[in-house]
Amino acid sequence: MYDCIIIGMGPAGLTAGVYAARKNLSVLMLGKQYGGQAVLTSEIENYMGFEYIKGPELMNRFEEQVKKYPVEMSREEVNNIYQEDSYFRIVCEDEKEYQSNTIIIATGESPRRLGIPGEKRFTGQGVSYCATCDAPLFSGKKAAVIGSGNDSIEAVHDLIKIAEHVYLISPEKLSADRILVDKVNKADNLTRLIGWTINKISGENMVNEITLQSSEQDEKQSLYIDGIFIKSGTIPNSSIVKDMLELNQNNEIKVDCNCTTSIPGIFAAGDVTNIPEKQIIVAAGEGAKAALSANKYLLKQNNTDIPTGIETSHNIFGYNQLPMH
Amino acid sequence: MYDCIIIGMGPAGLTAGVYAARKNLSVLMLGKQYGGQAVLTSEIENYMGFEYIKGPELMNRFEEQVKKYPVEMSREEVNNIYQEDSYFRIVCEDEKEYQSNTIIIATGESPRRLGIPGEKRFTGQGVSYCATCDAPLFSGKKAAVIGSGNDSIEAVHDLIKIAEHVYLISPEKLSADRILVDKVNKADNLTRLIGWTINKISGENMVNEITLQSSEQDEKQSLYIDGIFIKSGTIPNSSIVKDMLELNQNNEIKVDCNCTTSIPGIFAAGDVTNIPEKQIIVAAGEGAKAALSANKYLLKQNNTDIPTGIETSHNIFGYNQLPMH
Repeated sequence: MYDCIIIGMGPAGLTAGVYAARKNLSVLMLGKQYGGQAVLTSEIENYMGFEYIKGPELMNRFEEQVKKYPVEMSREEVNNIYQEDSYFRIVCEDEKEYQSNTIIIATGESPRRLGIPGEKRFTGQGVSYCATCDAPLFSGKKAAVIGSGNDSIEAVHDLIKIAEHVYLISPEKLSADRILVDKVNKADNLTRLIGWTINKISGENMVNEITLQSSEQDEKQSLYIDGIFIKSGTIPNSSIVKDMLELNQNNEIKVDCNCTTSIPGIFAAGDVTNIPEKQIIVAAGEGAKAALSANKYLLKQNNTDIPTGIETSHNIFGYNQLPMH
Repeated sequence: MYDCIIIGMGPAGLTAGVYAARKNLSVLMLGKQYGGQAVLTSEIENYMGFEYIKGPELMNRFEEQVKKYPVEMSREEVNNIYQEDSYFRIVCEDEKEYQSNTIIIATGESPRRLGIPGEKRFTGQGVSYCATCDAPLFSGKKAAVIGSGNDSIEAVHDLIKIAEHVYLISPEKLSADRILVDKVNKADNLTRLIGWTINKISGENMVNEITLQSSEQDEKQSLYIDGIFIKSGTIPNSSIVKDMLELNQNNEIKVDCNCTTSIPGIFAAGDVTNIPEKQIIVAAGEGAKAALSANKYLLKQNNTDIPTGIETSHNIFGYNQLPMH
């Protein structure tokens, strides 16, 4: 029986791990993918404390910080959570079971698929959701990036340094930060196709063609490329709790500012929740709050083996032995 | 007229500065004390990304990160905020005035005084609220720390390395993290006096005596010491907005999870708000959210000079010039 099981090993989960351990809780961290979406981010300039750091490096630092404490970590996927009378049972993929008094859900989000013909078939064969991972494969080749937000501009930024030519395709006006857009705007190997959607990915063994449609006119065009990076938003990884916890219309777990969910004892933090702004620094702050809320919940539950600080020292020093000069 | 004026230069304010600047807002930061309470913290082990860093060093890194962007910073105290029709006027101590479309209040908290005889008189003469600042003065001397939380144990930790003897005085059971308590527990120059309150500070030019009273018995004792560190909680620095914004019973500014206050256009973040857990990582996350909320507010207000991303490129590439192949 653990005091706290944390599901998810991204910025929120790892921060929760440090904070729970510092409260001397017995902690198990479960999760298949370490580092969350942050490891897919190449250049981070807005995590405070680092003017510039790569996503995987920052997540390594988070993980090393957790490992300073006696936190158990296991790379297992959680399949089910069951609520018992006064604790929770967590069942992993291999039917292995763990028990805990509290749970912190920090499972993050996953890239959203476009759901167009060819997307699934060519995933890994020219269709990618991670420029950080796959941009290096496009040396001297042509690539397209689909999307309008910061992550799509970051992908373009990765690619213009490597690829022969890059197409940025967005059905709508870019929503990315100006500072990021400025970084790629002058690249002479970038073509911006704003007002176009993609409706088909084709090829033989690998992607070699995409079909575009203009948003305003009913015009179709083909573009011959070697690969396509899809940066079209994310979906929260909330499926394991979808029948258990209250979600919002986007399937995000509803939490209050204390990271409390609709079930006492289950807390949630980071990108899987309805807290606005999917940012590493925000997720980390939420992870800290979730762990501290779990600790307070345990104290209230009167789990007597949760240390609440050192014993009072009345009996050690006593009134009579108060060491006065 | 600024897009955003940020009041306060602690972790929340500095993070808001970076995020607002990355949205290309024109930003002015105002505040007398740079770095907030974080600069009073000697050893930080729970700010993710750094297994160990000193408070002033971390805040220097935050400030350097802000300075990468065209953010104006001015070390001025804000005296008043006035709401005009569609903007805010901010009046500083020297009657200097600034105007802004949005404001982020990130003024933090200040140490709480005990309000006992001698406290005010001997402040700076043996009474201190900052062990990081003043512990080095106590080499070979005797010092007392008043408090039960993490900050008091941190003060003890600073002092046991320097002082001849340290007394930890707390009226109640310690609430500090076990991991911190463990660090000081074995020091042979520490006496823990739990269950005692302090009710008088005496001396001539400098503190030389404190009077203690037992919590359970009505017993008084004197303790001869050279200095006393008061770590008895904090009060939010919300006085400039106390007649303007809705506060809670602790005088913290009431915000929702978007850092929205009771007045549209004014946002608040960090320790001055009712958000639970006064932690650097939490304040930083809140600062990011406040800036992003301010940006969204400005976009909705249709302030046309707020860039929303690059222009669409219909007219540049046009449907007919779509560069195929």
